[in-house]
Amino acid sequence: MPRKSKRLERIAFVASDVAEARTALARLEARYGNAPVSEADAIVALGGDGLMLQTLHRHLKDRIPIYGMNRGSVGFMMNEYREKDLLDRLARAVVSVVHPLSMTATNGKSQSLEAIAINEVSLFRETTQAAKLRISVDGKVRLEELTCDGVLVATPAGSTAYNLSVYGPILPIDAQLLALTPISAFRPRRWRGALLPRAARILIEVIEAEKRPVAASADNAEFRDVVRVEVAEASEIDLLMMFDPGHGLDERILSEQFRY
Amino acid sequence: MPRKSKRLERIAFVASDVAEARTALARLEARYGNAPVSEADAIVALGGDGLMLQTLHRHLKDRIPIYGMNRGSVGFMMNEYREKDLLDRLARAVVSVVHPLSMTATNGKSQSLEAIAINEVSLFRETTQAAKLRISVDGKVRLEELTCDGVLVATPAGSTAYNLSVYGPILPIDAQLLALTPISAFRPRRWRGALLPRAARILIEVIEAEKRPVAASADNAEFRDVVRVEVAEASEIDLLMMFDPGHGLDERILSEQFRY
Amino acid sequence: MPRKSKRLERIAFVASDVAEARTALARLEARYGNAPVSEADAIVALGGDGLMLQTLHRHLKDRIPIYGMNRGSVGFMMNEYREKDLLDRLARAVVSVVHPLSMTATNGKSQSLEAIAINEVSLFRETTQAAKLRISVDGKVRLEELTCDGVLVATPAGSTAYNLSVYGPILPIDAQLLALTPISAFRPRRWRGALLPRAARILIEVIEAEKRPVAASADNAEFRDVVRVEVAEASEIDLLMMFDPGHGLDERILSEQFRY
Amino acid sequence: MPRKSKRLERIAFVASDVAEARTALARLEARYGNAPVSEADAIVALGGDGLMLQTLHRHLKDRIPIYGMNRGSVGFMMNEYREKDLLDRLARAVVSVVHPLSMTATNGKSQSLEAIAINEVSLFRETTQAAKLRISVDGKVRLEELTCDGVLVATPAGSTAYNLSVYGPILPIDAQLLALTPISAFRPRRWRGALLPRAARILIEVIEAEKRPVAASADNAEFRDVVRVEVAEASEIDLLMMFDPGHGLDERILSEQFRY
Repeated sequence: MPRKSKRLERIAFVASDVAEARTALARLEARYGNAPVSEADAIVALGGDGLMLQTLHRHLKDRIPIYGMNRGSVGFMMNEYREKDLLDRLARAVVSVVHPLSMTATNGKSQSLEAIAINEVSLFRETTQAAKLRISVDGKVRLEELTCDGVLVATPAGSTAYNLSVYGPILPIDAQLLALTPISAFRPRRWRGALLPRAARILIEVIEAEKRPVAASADNAEFRDVVRVEVAEASEIDLLMMFDPGHGLDERILSEQFRY
Repeated sequence: MPRKSKRLERIAFVASDVAEARTALARLEARYGNAPVSEADAIVALGGDGLMLQTLHRHLKDRIPIYGMNRGSVGFMMNEYREKDLLDRLARAVVSVVHPLSMTATNGKSQSLEAIAINEVSLFRETTQAAKLRISVDGKVRLEELTCDGVLVATPAGSTAYNLSVYGPILPIDAQLLALTPISAFRPRRWRGALLPRAARILIEVIEAEKRPVAASADNAEFRDVVRVEVAEASEIDLLMMFDPGHGLDERILSEQFRY
Repeated sequence: MPRKSKRLERIAFVASDVAEARTALARLEARYGNAPVSEADAIVALGGDGLMLQTLHRHLKDRIPIYGMNRGSVGFMMNEYREKDLLDRLARAVVSVVHPLSMTATNGKSQSLEAIAINEVSLFRETTQAAKLRISVDGKVRLEELTCDGVLVATPAGSTAYNLSVYGPILPIDAQLLALTPISAFRPRRWRGALLPRAARILIEVIEAEKRPVAASADNAEFRDVVRVEVAEASEIDLLMMFDPGHGLDERILSEQFRY
Repeated sequence: MPRKSKRLERIAFVASDVAEARTALARLEARYGNAPVSEADAIVALGGDGLMLQTLHRHLKDRIPIYGMNRGSVGFMMNEYREKDLLDRLARAVVSVVHPLSMTATNGKSQSLEAIAINEVSLFRETTQAAKLRISVDGKVRLEELTCDGVLVATPAGSTAYNLSVYGPILPIDAQLLALTPISAFRPRRWRGALLPRAARILIEVIEAEKRPVAASADNAEFRDVVRVEVAEASEIDLLMMFDPGHGLDERILSEQFRY
């Protein structure tokens, strides 16, 4: 899946809102100019994983490759920061293509929201009342009632994010899988989740939604008081992230699995 | 620790606010009368574990034994419901004495709250920003920075409640221990918590509290925007729960450990 | 990957060595005859998963489809036992194609053994001395020293067998992955294993092999006192298992993930 | 439980059989002499945890305090090695008193073995056939059939040894508990074990012992082909280990719980 990029000349820079990133932006603009995104061959994002996710969300349909340079505290999706040789690094970079998830959430008033998630779609109780959820895969109920804090569906790229905190498995970037992982399951208390084929269509229904309100989030965008949430891979959306050779997402995720 | 009760004659009944419990209350009052708590030898609570916790909270200092009968969906702390022979059952019941936790929480404005928790004291992030917590035991920092959804301290009696959902160990009722259990730990990502002597004094400090606001709860009572939380066993408070012989908390917790 | 079979007329029966299977064999032979394997369109195996594994091992290169009928205690790979309509069931059956693992194990005398594993290749300490293992993937050392009882590499088909007992993840049958799972890891004590691309070449070297002898097993075939073990998918071997529609390995593994 | 020792003058030295320990022995003998154990106030053991266990086993009934100094690779029970000021260190040392387990194992020929275990009593399958075990506590069957590699019962002192590798909880040294922990449980596949009161009497019976032979071990002493194993705390045996102040077993076990 990683593939060699061609020469990328016109760069659009974006930066997160911290001093370190702002300074980097000024210096890089001075050196390489700053093209409008509509005319750019690539976007260079200066910040952390939060900025990378934000930038990917803004350009879901643009098929423009994004190269991150780390100016923040967590940089799992970012390359090392350096000011010189940027065009050479872009020319040598490998591209990882990932597909996000599409979430369709419906609330008790039959209002519906569609959103895209790059890391994960998660459901979480809104109050101290535990959530009760019914989980179906491809039209078949697989878990009649999960009493829990919540549940999430993660992509391979997102498997090292919130999914990892809730003890879900890390997935290689090329795994054709989604991770369905419970968050603090109370009953069935030892259910650890499931690995599903990437083509799976997952439906999560909220039981006793009035007494036990639940919010759904696509990455960080939250939609409250949901009664049903459908999740599927948005296979028609290609997100292009660029990495220095030998430091691609595949390598990062592989080595993350051997950390302890 | 379990001990035989004497003849208890004057009963104060309390009931949770569902039809099933209300009906039971009416029938039992007709049969046994309903003494004011101040004059009662024992309280009989009709409902589920929620009501039992509530009743214990209301009578923290009263040293009055409480006998629950199950009229709700979860009844881990409740005896089987029966209308007849109540005085005989009370006479034969064994008493489990448990000690709650005392929590002292301080917020960013130096306001301080003291509260008692029977099951657990928990801290949880208020926003999508992960919490960062520093954990000390008996004045010594044991974990410099835990990035997580939260953390909890559970009593043995509470070890089968929220602590169990977050993969904490079940503690026998007589274990002289507290369970310190992380909730969705991100870094150190494999830290599973610790079992501490019951005399331990636990301090949890919130790092970057403005960016990463955290709420503290003593059972269900929540206190928002805390910056430090101290937890210790309130060994001076004796809570007395009564159980039919062979169905005491010790037996319940033991058999819970062999469920799967 | 599952695909429809053509009409299969000539059946070779095999049975495990228990009365129940022997009786079934006699009755089915009387009804359908019993072709030599070399002339058969399919093999019907009467027993449990042990017999299925044995039969697959005997016909690794034969590309002959095998249909199991359950006459034993564990039958994860077996269809329901029925005597009638066998040819119709075979005609309607779907075929799952799975690839085994190839293991090359070398002992301290430079003797080398090649073996095929359908479920898993495992290494395990031979004495009470913990094993110390170095793990490399695709020529790169990923774990310098794992102190443990052992380690295993499981296929998706084998992920519900020994891998499951040692807390490894269940893999969908079409997952293009192998599970590398530690057995009772002592140091790094919280390492949970890794999911690797199916093309990964895994090398496990035994440290202090004389003091800490280790045996390697391909399924149940054991080779003692190994010093190095290489594992890779034998992608050139296609094993064909037949299942009644709606009860294929994909469905079995999926529903196993929702058991608790 | 830790308590101050009196002045200990006559020292008996023991050393493990490695060069480093032998050299240390010679130097310390030259400096402090070497009393026969029968006349000694304390034993000083030069080696690792293995030697400490061995020395404790040799002096189960002697109530003689043992002070370990680390001359080996793992030294959880050992103090730092120094040659000078030994008598002062002994005078200031705190004593941890621990109780071992007593195991009574019976084989298929009704032969019976009693043995003492300081860390753990474990049962483990002898062949590739999984073990099937029935587990009772205080005369009541708690788990009808555990299919597994094995099971163990650990003391608090042993909870950081093999128990930790098989994902059992670490117990504070003063916890009045035993850990009953499964080893690679296959069915019930998510059973994680139980914490039992120290007075619990545990009976493990081997099911289908001929087909599925099982060995029982008290620390490293193995007894093969067992059909039943009883385990209980040997509360009449006091083992005395000495530690430098601030580095006692209680502190060691507590800080081990905050490692990750």
